[in-house]
Parts: sequence; structure tokens; C-alpha cells
Amino acid sequence: MASEFELIRRHFTLPTRNTKLGVGDDAALLVPRPGMELVVTSDMLVAGTHFFADTNPVDLGWKTLAVNVSDIAAMGATPRWAFLAIALPDADEAWIARLARGFAECAECFDIDLAGGDTTRGPLTLSVTLIGEVATGNAIRREGARDGDDLWVTGTPGLASLGLAHLRGEPSLSDDAAAICLAALHRPQPRLGAGQALKGIATAMLDVSDGLLGDLGHILEHSGVGAEIDLECLPSGLPDDHAISRARLQEAVLRGGDDYELLFTAPACRRDGISNLSAHLTLPFSRIGKITGDAGIIMLVDRQGSRTPATALGYDHFRQ
Amino acid sequence: MASEFELIRRHFTLPTRNTKLGVGDDAALLVPRPGMELVVTSDMLVAGTHFFADTNPVDLGWKTLAVNVSDIAAMGATPRWAFLAIALPDADEAWIARLARGFAECAECFDIDLAGGDTTRGPLTLSVTLIGEVATGNAIRREGARDGDDLWVTGTPGLASLGLAHLRGEPSLSDDAAAICLAALHRPQPRLGAGQALKGIATAMLDVSDGLLGDLGHILEHSGVGAEIDLECLPSGLPDDHAISRARLQEAVLRGGDDYELLFTAPACRRDGISNLSAHLTLPFSRIGKITGDAGIIMLVDRQGSRTPATALGYDHFRQ
Repeated sequence: MASEFELIRRHFTLPTRNTKLGVGDDAALLVPRPGMELVVTSDMLVAGTHFFADTNPVDLGWKTLAVNVSDIAAMGATPRWAFLAIALPDADEAWIARLARGFAECAECFDIDLAGGDTTRGPLTLSVTLIGEVATGNAIRREGARDGDDLWVTGTPGLASLGLAHLRGEPSLSDDAAAICLAALHRPQPRLGAGQALKGIATAMLDVSDGLLGDLGHILEHSGVGAEIDLECLPSGLPDDHAISRARLQEAVLRGGDDYELLFTAPACRRDGISNLSAHLTLPFSRIGKITGDAGIIMLVDRQGSRTPATALGYDHFRQ
Repeated sequence: MASEFELIRRHFTLPTRNTKLGVGDDAALLVPRPGMELVVTSDMLVAGTHFFADTNPVDLGWKTLAVNVSDIAAMGATPRWAFLAIALPDADEAWIARLARGFAECAECFDIDLAGGDTTRGPLTLSVTLIGEVATGNAIRREGARDGDDLWVTGTPGLASLGLAHLRGEPSLSDDAAAICLAALHRPQPRLGAGQALKGIATAMLDVSDGLLGDLGHILEHSGVGAEIDLECLPSGLPDDHAISRARLQEAVLRGGDDYELLFTAPACRRDGISNLSAHLTLPFSRIGKITGDAGIIMLVDRQGSRTPATALGYDHFRQ
């Protein structure tokens, strides 16, 4: 059987463009560009908690990096260097090769160097730390939302949770809808271009990984504001024949986790610019509500105009 | 039960001195100093592979960070920002609080900010990425060893492996020796001061985490050289009554993993400087051999001067 060192070398020595010293020493050596701040995020994916152990390893490799790219995108930054720590129950080389391929596809797509990491024996666990850069002072944080700002979301959150429900046998989706939802679950597309283009436009931003309401709650908490969501304006992103109820779809959009859309606030005067950006990126942006002065309160407004307070609880790995 | 977010906030919001934005946004914001390169390392510790699940969590927290500090020390760099991803089978708050305490002790000892991370449910796994800095061009790498250089090691590698053997019931150690070996296993002391002081002195360096011979093999491979080890010069670090055989002790020094001493090469003209450094740091440095031109070959030389080639195999998590 190949050794740990050989396996790492064989499959995870990817071409690097911006790394002075990568895999193979005690540590990697990186040269940040002058005038930039570092933006760093970590995510750990565990078999059985975040994915099924029989997930296609190419998809898993993609997603492992993509969820971190999404965090960097949510700061308006540029991802540069990834570090991947893997625990594996055994050294199944074919599986590792496919995992590495998916990871490499995502790294290449977003111009990221795999600069280091660790491989060890243990229950299947993937942990990425991704380092990005942003010009000093330009990161988009969570605390800038102001009373009266519009509330926007990219794409359609909730699709991944419908894909997961579909894999579990409920609810039934049309074939077309299932394909869309499974793609959202397995191959999330981090909104990097959108995040970077929103610098100077968005007043607060994050990515919707734990459910729209729960993540909105973080913006409200950090900014000391409230929000109103216009239920009529929530995106659907599914063909008309999707075969699930409107209520179920709305629930998925509001509370489904494991999507990686961007949720952000912006002044009303930015609407035209955001519409142009949406067209330029061929990515739908939905204006789903607005920020209010009622700190910590999310009101859901239906088509009749009646208002219901929402609980902001999101997805929590200890509360499943 | 407290939520994931509450647990993180409660126990892992440590004071930070050098972090613009830490735990609580999509990503952390860090400001590297001008003229510095980044030095980044990742290590993943898995229950059952790297530690017993019933290990004292204070020690575990210390060690989780300390093993990464050791990698930064081995580059001659200064650790600055840590990211900790944890998978936990359940949210045992008392346990988490003790883990956080040990981690914080190590962070404070080496002036490191815990700048971010992730917490999730899963088999007990701890993954740290540690970012350090070193002045441009000053990192000590693995490829600079030259024929004729002295070979040095700090402290006594092998003690941690004897501590582990002791926990497993073999071989018997005197009480004093057991205390020393268990401390090496549970509370490794990264040689940060030594690593930094060796800039401009050491020609190649790494930390001995996978066993002295195996790690020496990495220096030989990267530098295209060989080495001779004088068995008489190997450090012991145990009281005379340690109650294990000379052969067993020598085996532990040469092949025991999970120590975090520094192994380095330096020209013979540096001997006085290194002795002074040893005295200044009150840390033993042992000159255990020399670098040769026989690429890839390690010769063990005994007190009679007879020479035996050593196999360079180190510790490998997939070969246990």
C-alpha cells in the first residue's frame, strides 16, 4: 500500500502559481501582495454530518473547497491559498484520486493554490482553511446594514435542502427539479464574481450556509437592525412542474441550509447598479425585503400585507 | 443545550491582539506586516489515531496548537494567527471549556491570536491551521544541508513514544522517568525560541514529529545528501534509574514519533554559537552526527566505530 507521503505527493501536488514553497516542507511560504489584508476562513466537513459517506468523491472534493470560497466571496475578497487536512479511514487510492480531481477543478476554476495540508487516518473528515486577500479596508462585513437598506439575495437558497430531502425520499420532485436541486447540493457555485463586484455597493453581506433566516439574524445582530421579508419576492429557481407545494418551497428558501448564495444589504439608490450586475453575471439577484429599525426582529410579509414575526433560528450542527 | 454558536462564543472568544476581525464573520481579517512572508501549516489530530479519547482535554488543547507552533518554529518563523476546526460527538460544555483552556494557555504562551475556525458534530477531530510570519527570504527550509555540516537535535526525541508505551503498559519506567515521558507526550514544548535563533545558523531544519530517522530522511531527500549518526552522542534526557534498556531507549530516540524537537544542520564553524545558544535557552542541543555526500544513506556508527545503514522509514499514519 502506498504511504501517506506518497499518496499526498501523487494526488495533491497540484500546480501552484502563487506559492513560494508549497506541499513538502514543515510549512508553506506565501507572499502576500502589498496593501492587502488577509481574509481567512475554515470549514470542516464530516461524513454523516455534512455529506453521505457514499457521496461521489469528485463532487465532494469540489464542495469541500467551494464552501470556503463562498466565505471569501462573502467578504468581497479574492481566494488565493488553500490548506486541506484530510482524515481517511483507509488509503483507497482510487477514491483519493477522484477527491483530488474535484478539489483541483474548484481550485483551478477560482485560481487557488493548494499550498499545504495534512493527511491522516480517522473517520472521513475534510478540513479546509482558505486564505484570500482584499485591499485594506475594503472587506464587506456584517455590521454595515442600515434602516431602509434593501435586502438582496443571489440565486435561490433552499435548493440544496430540497435536494437532500429528495435523496431521503421526501418530497417528490419532478426529474428536472430534482436535477437542479441535486446540483445545488453537490456542486455549489460560490458567488465569487458577485461578492467582489459588490464592494462599495453592499453595506453588509454574508453567505447563506445555515439558512436565510438564521444568517440574516447574524446581519441583524452585528448591525443592530431588523428586517422585513416580502414573501412574494422570494426566488424559486425551479421549473413550474417542480411538484412541491408553495409552502414547502418557501420553507426551503427561508430555512434550508447548505446553499452558498450571498445575502446582502444595499441602499435603495443602488438598485440599478445591482440589476446591471445581475445581467452582467447572468445571475439572478432578488430584492426580497428591507432593513428596519426594529433591532433583532424579522417580519414576514405575505401577499395580503399581513405581517408575522419569524424566528431567526438557523441550522445548527448540535441541534439537528 | 447551548447552541454551536453560543458554545463557540462562550469558550473560544479569546482575547486577540493582532487581529482586525476575528471569530464571528464569514472570515477573519488579518494585517500582515510589510516585508514579511507568510508561513502556514496545518495539522489534524484525530481521537484514536493521535490521542486517546479520554486524554485530559486541557493537555489536548495545548498539544493541538503546540504541534503547529513546532512547524512554524522549524521554519525559524513567528506564529501569529490560529484557526481551529473541531468536530465533536456532542456538545459537552465542561469538556469544551477545558479544551479551550489548554488551547488558550498555548496561544498565550506563544502570543498567538485564535482568529477563527469552525465547530461541528462528528467523531472527535481537531484541525488547526496556523499562520506565522518571517522576514522575506529568511525561512529555514529543508534543502540547505551540505556535505560536512554537523547534525544537531534539540532536547530528547523519543520521550513521547516511551510515554505512549508506558500508557500501554510496556515497558516499565521508573516513576521519575514516566513523569518526564508523559509530559513529553501530553505537553510538548515547541522549540520556538531555538528555531528563531537558528536563522542564519542552520542550513536546513525541521521538527521531529514522525521520528528522527524518518524526518532526517526528508532533509536528505530535499538536500541531496546523506548522514552519519554517532549513536554514542544521542541524547537520553532520562534519569539513570529509568529502568529500560539502552537498546530500547536508542530505538525510541531514533524512531519514536510525536516529539517536537528540532533537527537541523549547521556548518562546523557554528559550534560555539550553538553551544552559547543552548546555554542561553537552557535547552540541551546534541551534536549527533554529520552530513555526508552519500545521497539518501543514513549510517549509524556505534562506539566501536562499526557502521550500519539505517532504514529511514518514519511514522506513517497509514502504516501503523
